[in-house]
This record gives sequence, structure tokens and C-alpha cells, in this order.
Amino acid sequence: METNRTIGIVGLGLIGGSLAVDLRARGYASRFIGTDKNPLNAEAAGRLGLVDRVVPLEECIEESDIIVVSVPVSAAAGIIHTVLDTFKDKGYTDKIVMDVCSTKSQIAERLKYHPCRKRYVATHPMAGTEHSGPWAALPGLFDARACIIADQDESDPAAVRTVEELYKVLNMRIVYMTSDSHDVHTAFVSHLSHVTSFSLALTVLDKERDEKHIFDLASGGFSSTVRLAKSNADMWVPIFMQNRDNLLRVIDAYMEKMQDFREAIDQYDEDKVRALIDEANRIKKIIR
Amino acid sequence: METNRTIGIVGLGLIGGSLAVDLRARGYASRFIGTDKNPLNAEAAGRLGLVDRVVPLEECIEESDIIVVSVPVSAAAGIIHTVLDTFKDKGYTDKIVMDVCSTKSQIAERLKYHPCRKRYVATHPMAGTEHSGPWAALPGLFDARACIIADQDESDPAAVRTVEELYKVLNMRIVYMTSDSHDVHTAFVSHLSHVTSFSLALTVLDKERDEKHIFDLASGGFSSTVRLAKSNADMWVPIFMQNRDNLLRVIDAYMEKMQDFREAIDQYDEDKVRALIDEANRIKKIIR
Repeated sequence: METNRTIGIVGLGLIGGSLAVDLRARGYASRFIGTDKNPLNAEAAGRLGLVDRVVPLEECIEESDIIVVSVPVSAAAGIIHTVLDTFKDKGYTDKIVMDVCSTKSQIAERLKYHPCRKRYVATHPMAGTEHSGPWAALPGLFDARACIIADQDESDPAAVRTVEELYKVLNMRIVYMTSDSHDVHTAFVSHLSHVTSFSLALTVLDKERDEKHIFDLASGGFSSTVRLAKSNADMWVPIFMQNRDNLLRVIDAYMEKMQDFREAIDQYDEDKVRALIDEANRIKKIIR
Repeated sequence: METNRTIGIVGLGLIGGSLAVDLRARGYASRFIGTDKNPLNAEAAGRLGLVDRVVPLEECIEESDIIVVSVPVSAAAGIIHTVLDTFKDKGYTDKIVMDVCSTKSQIAERLKYHPCRKRYVATHPMAGTEHSGPWAALPGLFDARACIIADQDESDPAAVRTVEELYKVLNMRIVYMTSDSHDVHTAFVSHLSHVTSFSLALTVLDKERDEKHIFDLASGGFSSTVRLAKSNADMWVPIFMQNRDNLLRVIDAYMEKMQDFREAIDQYDEDKVRALIDEANRIKKIIR
């Protein structure tokens, strides 16, 4: 493995920071630089030692072998575009830019005809916490999780191999699919559960206005179900916007299930409620 | 503390079993007996050493100082009634019967005019896991959780004190409220999150019929949100039935929040989605 590399992280938050921590500790690269348009994040990332040096974006592109774009999905396509423009203008043919975004189709669309498209590898490591910012960076965040590489045929095979190597160092299981398929899957197993957690939090917070002590009774089960409601708007608003069509379909499918429960409970239909719960219990065999 | 007691557990599942484990380890009583109408559970509880002896219900009432009723809520009122009848018929004035049920109003209603009502203490320790049966019993399950004592004025003060002592040994924080208030609170912080988890599981399981690998991508966030969907129907069907009216109101409040999200996403209303998420984030200050 080539280890005499420089990694440039654009966006020094939870994901960018955690990538840097493990890639450094595991010897994937020798030098880490980074940039963040929020000066507070940039300074914190430097002080926390996530990167060796905080630099402007141009310098980050210039000096890095691999540029990792880990910013909210609304900003990602523009930055990747800028990076690819620089590759073109300066004649860089060996550098790679990769993103870690939670939506893929809109970004793919935007970059489709860029003459340097092949130097971009679209990825999504399926890991995270409900916290954000450089201070939320964690060692081991990616271990044993799935990582999607999207539209791999659109990228240079050598660039894909380098990125696969990077994710193998992070102990990730790589899954290949198209951007469109990615966005359908994540609507189901990630975006929907954020909407349901936010809504659950809002429902109980509303009730708290009259019943000050309602949360005194919250047990571990409630905390677990509502955990994702701590996730931040800067990250999630653009994800919901970019994956709007899939997400609306999935929300509708979910509301139908809620409605099935509502009706069965309303009609004291014990058999129906039991059948719904028994079916839901199949999740036991799938999620440990 | 009087420790030369016999505790009788009616219903040797997760809650009854876990109570026995900690009460024994912490010296609250010297002898534990129990009964379960399911012979498999009864035998397992004996083999696991949760109780010293498995006995018929009559003997359990006869020999115990405190009878703990830890059966599904649909069966609880009938058993407590039988226990109180025995107290009356045999002239027992010192024995106590307590339940640990997740719903309280219907049970309270049923027992209201029993001549031995004062020897019954209505409680609900707010702890559990998504697993069930005697093999799911855990030490430390109740530590640092809340326990509700409902309608305490309906019980003998001395009986309430004995039960308070029991829950203090389990390191529980005791909260007092009426049965009706209990059922409203738990609809919000417990029953609703079970319905949302079941529905989330059903939605993704449906999709799995076409997309075999959808769960390959499930991250820790999804697992956390869907965890309660592993909970079993024997316990939850009767809870939903007994708390129907409160639960329907809470489901409706929740569906309105889901609808707010749906509309804001549908209309690409970023400001509205942001406002909803920011408001939901208040949960951070409440749930660690």
C-alpha cells in the first residue's frame, strides 16, 4: 500500500474528521490537510489534531493526492465541480476526488458530463452519530459498517481501486450500486427513520408544554427510538430536499402502516394488531 | 429492613424474573417462589434459579408476604382479583399484592370496590428490553429508572411503604400519579414509540420483498430506531387495547407531525423543515 500520500479533507466535521483519525492511525497516508468554510470548525480541527494543517481550498486541491469532500449535500456538487475544474485546468491526471454524501443522484447528474468525471469516485460510508462538528469525530466509527460506491463504471478503475483500499483500511464492507438505487435504499433505511424520530420528538415535546414531567418517565426504549432526533438541520435539510421524491414515497408507505395500526386499535381488532406485530418481529432475524 | 420475607412472583418473564434476581442479590427477601401458567416458562425459571420453587397460584398466595403480579395486562386484573379474594376468604391482613403493569386505569377500575383493595399497590417500573421470557431476565434492569406508584391513596400507607422500600432496593426513582395520568404519560413516552417502531419495521420489510439487500445498508441509527419492533405481541396487544383511547389521540398528534414534514418536503420548504428539525433538537437537552 502506497502510504506516502497526502489526504485533503474538505469539510472538517464528524465524517471528515473521523476518516482522518482512522486513516492516520492505520497508516493509510502520511499527511492530512483540510479546509472548512466555517472558521470555528477549521480552527477546532487543527487544535484537535485531525489535520496537520488547515489550508485554503485551492491549496488543499493542489497538495493532496486524494480530496475527500465531506460537506452537507447541498454544497458538495459545487465543490466537486470546482475540484474537477482545477484538475482540468492544471492538467492533473492522478489526483482523485471522492465524496461521502448521503444522497447521490443529484450530484451524479450535475457532474455527469464533466471532462474529468472519471477522477471522481462517488461513495457513501453508512456510519455516523447524531452529533456533528470536528469535536464529534471518533476513532472506529466506520468499522464493520457498509460503504456504498455508486456508479463505479463512471470512474477510472484505478481511482476506484484506490478508494476501495481506503475503505478497506476503515474495515468497511463495500457495496456497489447506481446513484438512483442508492437514493431509494437510503430513503428506506436512513432518511425515513430520521423523519420518524424528529416527529416522535416533536409530539412529546408538544405535550411537555402541559405536562412538565412527561420526560421523567422516558425509558431506554424511548431514548433509543428518539435518538436520531438530535441530528442537525444543516446536514438533514439538504438531504431531505435532494431525496424528496423517494422520501415522499417512503413516508407514504410508512403512514399506511401507521394507519393500519390506528384502525386495528380503533376497532379493538386484536387479531389484526397481533398479525402486524408478529410480522414486524421478523426484523429480529435481520437486525441484531 | 425486614429480610425474612417470601416473595411470590406470578408470571416468570422478563420483569418478574429480573425483579427476583436483584431483590435476592440485594437481600430484600430470603425466599422466592413463583408460578407461571406457561409450563415452559415455569420450568425455565426454576432451572435458571430465578425462584427457589415453582408452585401453583394458590400456594404462591398462601406462602408469600408480597405477591408480585407480572403477567400481560389482559390477565393482570383477574389474577389480582383472585389474590384479593383469597386475602378476604382467609382473613390475611398483612400480605400485599402489587402489579407491574404498563397500563393502570382499567385494572384500577376493575378492583376499585374490592373489600381488600387497600392491600393492593399499583406500580409500573419503567424498565424493560425488547426481549421476553425468563431467559431474558437481567440483573440491574431497574437501576436509575423511574417507577410509578399509581393511586397511592387507595392503598394502605404501610403497604405503600413496603413497596417503596422494594423499589428503593432496585435503585428506582419513585413517581406518584393517578392511574389515568399514568396511562396518558405512557401513551406518549412508551406506547407510541412501539407503534412507530413496528411501523418502521413493516415499511422496510415490505420493501425487502423486491430489494433483497436493503438491510445490508442499515446503520446503527436505523437499528436504534427500529429496536422496539422486536417486542412481543403477547405483551403489546393487550397494552394497546387497554390504552386505546389515549393511544389513538397520541397517534393522531404524531401523524400530524409526520404530515407537517411531508408537506414541507413536498413543497421544498427548506425553512419549514429546518424549523421542525431545530424544534425537535430540543430533545437533546432532555434525553442524554
